[in-house]
Amino acid sequence: MELHLHQTHHTIGDFAKIVDYLQDQCCTPLPGLHLLPELFLTGYPLQDLCLQKPFIKNYQETLANINQWSVDYFRGENIAFLMGGLKYTFDPSGLPRAIENVIYLLQPGLELQAIYSKRLLPNYDIFDEEKYFSPGHASRCFTFQGKNIGLLICEDMWTSSFHQHDPVKEFARDIVKTKKSIDLVINLSASPYYLDKQKNRIARGMEISHLLKAPFAYVNRVGGEDEILFDGASFIVQGEEILVQGQSFRAEIISTTVPIKKPSEQALLGNHHEDLTQDPANTWEGLFSPNFSYAHQLPTLPDLTDEKCASLIQALGFGMQEYATKTGFNKFLIALSGGIDSALVVALVKLSLRPGQSLECLYMPSKFSAQISHDLSAEMCQKIQVPLKVFPIKFLHSTVNIAFQEAFGEQMHGLTDENIQSRLRGALLYGRSNQTGRMVFNTSNKSELAVGYSTQYGDSVGALSVLGDLYKTEVISLCRYINKYHENIIPQLIIDRPPSAELREQQEDAQSLPPYARLDAILEGILSYRLTLQEIVAMGFESTEVEKIYGLYQKSEYKRTQFCPILKVKTKSFGFGYRVPIAKKLT
Amino acid sequence: MELHLHQTHHTIGDFAKIVDYLQDQCCTPLPGLHLLPELFLTGYPLQDLCLQKPFIKNYQETLANINQWSVDYFRGENIAFLMGGLKYTFDPSGLPRAIENVIYLLQPGLELQAIYSKRLLPNYDIFDEEKYFSPGHASRCFTFQGKNIGLLICEDMWTSSFHQHDPVKEFARDIVKTKKSIDLVINLSASPYYLDKQKNRIARGMEISHLLKAPFAYVNRVGGEDEILFDGASFIVQGEEILVQGQSFRAEIISTTVPIKKPSEQALLGNHHEDLTQDPANTWEGLFSPNFSYAHQLPTLPDLTDEKCASLIQALGFGMQEYATKTGFNKFLIALSGGIDSALVVALVKLSLRPGQSLECLYMPSKFSAQISHDLSAEMCQKIQVPLKVFPIKFLHSTVNIAFQEAFGEQMHGLTDENIQSRLRGALLYGRSNQTGRMVFNTSNKSELAVGYSTQYGDSVGALSVLGDLYKTEVISLCRYINKYHENIIPQLIIDRPPSAELREQQEDAQSLPPYARLDAILEGILSYRLTLQEIVAMGFESTEVEKIYGLYQKSEYKRTQFCPILKVKTKSFGFGYRVPIAKKLT
Repeated sequence: MELHLHQTHHTIGDFAKIVDYLQDQCCTPLPGLHLLPELFLTGYPLQDLCLQKPFIKNYQETLANINQWSVDYFRGENIAFLMGGLKYTFDPSGLPRAIENVIYLLQPGLELQAIYSKRLLPNYDIFDEEKYFSPGHASRCFTFQGKNIGLLICEDMWTSSFHQHDPVKEFARDIVKTKKSIDLVINLSASPYYLDKQKNRIARGMEISHLLKAPFAYVNRVGGEDEILFDGASFIVQGEEILVQGQSFRAEIISTTVPIKKPSEQALLGNHHEDLTQDPANTWEGLFSPNFSYAHQLPTLPDLTDEKCASLIQALGFGMQEYATKTGFNKFLIALSGGIDSALVVALVKLSLRPGQSLECLYMPSKFSAQISHDLSAEMCQKIQVPLKVFPIKFLHSTVNIAFQEAFGEQMHGLTDENIQSRLRGALLYGRSNQTGRMVFNTSNKSELAVGYSTQYGDSVGALSVLGDLYKTEVISLCRYINKYHENIIPQLIIDRPPSAELREQQEDAQSLPPYARLDAILEGILSYRLTLQEIVAMGFESTEVEKIYGLYQKSEYKRTQFCPILKVKTKSFGFGYRVPIAKKLT
Repeated sequence: MELHLHQTHHTIGDFAKIVDYLQDQCCTPLPGLHLLPELFLTGYPLQDLCLQKPFIKNYQETLANINQWSVDYFRGENIAFLMGGLKYTFDPSGLPRAIENVIYLLQPGLELQAIYSKRLLPNYDIFDEEKYFSPGHASRCFTFQGKNIGLLICEDMWTSSFHQHDPVKEFARDIVKTKKSIDLVINLSASPYYLDKQKNRIARGMEISHLLKAPFAYVNRVGGEDEILFDGASFIVQGEEILVQGQSFRAEIISTTVPIKKPSEQALLGNHHEDLTQDPANTWEGLFSPNFSYAHQLPTLPDLTDEKCASLIQALGFGMQEYATKTGFNKFLIALSGGIDSALVVALVKLSLRPGQSLECLYMPSKFSAQISHDLSAEMCQKIQVPLKVFPIKFLHSTVNIAFQEAFGEQMHGLTDENIQSRLRGALLYGRSNQTGRMVFNTSNKSELAVGYSTQYGDSVGALSVLGDLYKTEVISLCRYINKYHENIIPQLIIDRPPSAELREQQEDAQSLPPYARLDAILEGILSYRLTLQEIVAMGFESTEVEKIYGLYQKSEYKRTQFCPILKVKTKSFGFGYRVPIAKKLT
């Protein structure tokens, strides 16, 4: 059978382009089965948009347009398009009573037909689907070219102890019961990227292919939606074999011929009873399994291999570009400090820059800034040919000090004086942003965010956080990788010098925080595995240190609440899928 | 039957105080049935906290303590405590497999016993219960003193087209089927406040009492949890009669004797068949019904009556106090501008001030600030005996202008210059906050938030937004009310002068925005009723104006994303329950 996986890339709600794409594809259609992603017709995730009548009206008109066009102009044979979309049921008042996340079938000369409703609605972490959608209640096969095609939407392919149904196992049971094979299993997805996830997807795809004795075709959308990245990477597997695999983070159509062999009835039924009683190896829980490395005495975060670094660089560059272009920016601005975080953000943006785009860096030294911080910033900018502007805040800072004393009759305390420098920088950075129309990228990392080691409205400003899902030790790994494969664009001393906020004399992060290797391992225990303090201490950490970090983490919720969207590249991240009250009894 | 409604007030996760309260109440227990709120044992809402092992460990230890204590020391007769709590089921790995929101029964000498699991899990707006909890599958009555007591938890009392079950109707059907009366219906709640909600609760309570021919006892928690306010206001109704009603926003125990009359079998069954076929008058949807006023030619927001103003003032004062005290602040700081929004926040905080707390105002004039702005601020502060500090930003502003020109070789544009003033104020306000340990309250209103009429990191800073759920026209009404009942503490000219941001010469809001009465009505159509632009235009508004406002609303999502928590006093608010993507195709 001819299969065409359309790994599409459209902005949420850009119905004109979505219809254009469909009409283009249908105008001179390639014969065979065309698969488009989950919610291709609307984009994903929509959140409250799918409840807003202006959006609903545009969407309903889009469906009507497609129907009219198909009836009038869509011609061909042996062709079917399966695509994701929403199916609304309305109250008499015109408000939505139910919304289903469905597969629409489009065939020449016919209207769109909803043939399957997603059964497993993810409702954990960043997913709120039960808030918006009603689940489907039955599995469904679809017949095309005489073949029996099992339909799944995204989460439907996973199995978990907390899911009430197991659509894949239901297919297997149906095969046993009806003695009718499934010839192909398809999954239309809108599946967010995170590090290492593709391996899980393929392993599970192979497991399904093995269980149902049929090829498994998986198509995923491409797009960056605020913090959430969809990476495409569509694939078809048969048994243990990967037949095709699409690129990551790039729209494309993957066409191939999939040989469909009807299994003998013997083969069909032989193993099924056995398979059905076995637990699958690739469960939903497996996606989120702990990932500590005990190579050293204490657990540490696993090393970022070259392969992972390459994936992260691609993902983060894609995410920045998506957010910028979808909000109408092609000029960027980053506050460069001479430290490693801002250097990495500059490098990542530089590596992702497209024709017509530009990047500017701004260095804002105070009286506490070392000359070497300037020199390293200048060296890096020269190397990558990015203009570096310098806006000294020394005079401004002392002006504020004097005015403060005049207004309040007292000198600024230490912390006041530290924070005011950071906030003046925030104000000036955004002044430059206003003046030039440049989008500001934030440079905080996950370690800082977790313990609140930043100044609200100061170094925490920005439209988008690039590193907010990477611990400091991972920032270092990524810098090393970039230097190895991208001509040492980050001066080595930026990587090697001790981290400092340079907000007072001789300040170093190490005065306030444990070494980052320990900090990051402890944070991973708290954030990703939600361990008790006792469990973390039992790994070999000092209890005073663990308690101190847990205290800092708990007390800094208010800062994270007002932080910008963070590009999500891990299973557990700060941001939309992380929801913790600010006002609470601290443990 | 003796009933005791415990309208409790505890910080989320403050297990020591929760156990103390319970032991105090059990030490010399009043005979009868004691009702405590939903999730009394943990607090609500917990969000991800209920998945974190440190929290779970503390909670499990708390349950064990209560059990041990009850077995060893709790003595008495004719006593039962019903209280809300979580019931965890664990995986072998120690991670929670399922969490139920249950009613625990505590009786003298016995351990806690989970006797009912909440069936309807709210999962709309601010509620994410399906994300965390597993629903119960059966209604349940509990026998006490020979009486049959129907159990409900919060949402269970409501009926809606989107709820899969209707626990109240199931009770009615059971009565018909078993011919056994229910003698009392109880509802343990954690029900957020919003304007006018208490009327809905009581009306629905009466409807349930009528349908089930039994008194209906409703106990609600008290507490401000970030943006969400729980108002208590517990009550018992019988038919059309309110037997008792608790205070709003105050912990108390309401004890009363409820006469329980067993209805004759005739009465019991007579109307039930009829009642069961009738649609209830007080549905969930009714809570969210449109509320436009067409008293004038165009729709406007309904007037805030004196009763509503009083309720709002109580709610907002309570919410500020809760957030401040739970995060450890007793000193407050507000930037006073001479405008109506900051004046109202100052008035509200002043009216809510408790012994030992203090408020300071900071006036930060630029060269565009009118003298009258200072004088009005000074007049108000004098009237209410709050210190007013003045920090002129004129010199600082010109210093930044010069430094900007030196650094970049060009003068600031108009918008850059406007925003930098606002951001300098933000930095200085937080400098003062750092120096004095005062919490900053934000002064933006809902109209500004909706159209992005504010400077990010400038006037949008603050730990908590007091007015972010009130439109500008409602801000005006509230000021008038305060002056009427609180000695004209807001100078009349602050209310009467045209609103201005004072960021350039002769600036007035009216240059950028429609008159607030029109703006607010259009915004309410967009935000609360999610109307199409065509529907709003059909009400009589100009389409260019509606389109302009809708455009501003859509484009300012990025500002709202980084805004502080907003005290929620309406059914539809910005904040946690409002989730709209930033990057999207604008309509």
